[in-house]
Amino acid sequence: MSKPFAPRRSVEQVEEGTELAPKFDERGLIPVVTTDFETGELLMHGYMNAEALERTIETGEAHYFSRSRKALWHKGATSGFVQKVRELLVDDDQDCIWLRVDVAGGASCHVGYRSCFYRRVPLGGAEAPAELEFTDTEKVFDPTDVYGDAPNPTKL
Amino acid sequence: MSKPFAPRRSVEQVEEGTELAPKFDERGLIPVVTTDFETGELLMHGYMNAEALERTIETGEAHYFSRSRKALWHKGATSGFVQKVRELLVDDDQDCIWLRVDVAGGASCHVGYRSCFYRRVPLGGAEAPAELEFTDTEKVFDPTDVYGDAPNPTKL
Repeated sequence: MSKPFAPRRSVEQVEEGTELAPKFDERGLIPVVTTDFETGELLMHGYMNAEALERTIETGEAHYFSRSRKALWHKGATSGFVQKVRELLVDDDQDCIWLRVDVAGGASCHVGYRSCFYRRVPLGGAEAPAELEFTDTEKVFDPTDVYGDAPNPTKL
Repeated sequence: MSKPFAPRRSVEQVEEGTELAPKFDERGLIPVVTTDFETGELLMHGYMNAEALERTIETGEAHYFSRSRKALWHKGATSGFVQKVRELLVDDDQDCIWLRVDVAGGASCHVGYRSCFYRRVPLGGAEAPAELEFTDTEKVFDPTDVYGDAPNPTKL
């Protein structure tokens, strides 16, 4: 496949035009917001490099760039929780991608929850540090069953 | 207000605990996904520094860090389109924030659309470059009326 990306020539072309001209940052990455097509729930936030974006467009399955493994990451290749892309959108200045997906198996979070966003920060700021409230307490799967002893991607 | 953030001590604390211990990247920023509380629509993707996150928690109104202006950015201060935070969530490894907001005036995009994500990338990859399809063609406001001749934040 030839490259699906146009060069970025002007603000008008990028904001108002019909050419896909994504901006990758100094690391070669573009942030990706992934929501559930049916419910609108935010499932995860990740990154793509140019190859991951090309593969996603080509195959209709979400590919990311894993910053912890420094490698192309076909989401679900290990866990089986493949994300089928129903809609792929780009923002005004084309430095962010929005994937609206269906998830096989219904989970997107390596900790075992349906969504990576299972804790709420109370507003008002009375406490220090803020005490998080769980919005979901039921894991969809047990990470040790799915990932075995693969290293946890979370970095401190 | 004292700092609402805890130090990051362990993967378990960060992923399964109740302390807010956000990870700011090497630029001091954390990505933020902002969706419409009622419709679930993705409105924008931005960044916060520690001060912006503190102010957002404290005031319940979305504050970001503007990378183009290199300054704290109270969303809506110029346009009037303030974002009232209904829910603020953090992800598993606490390196991303999700804001669920109500938007005064109904617009979040400096180009004039309701959402920054008004163009779809067709899947399959037959064309090069991919030709974007507009999902929204009606601007909510005229940017020149709202911003006058302030510089456009889009960078090539």
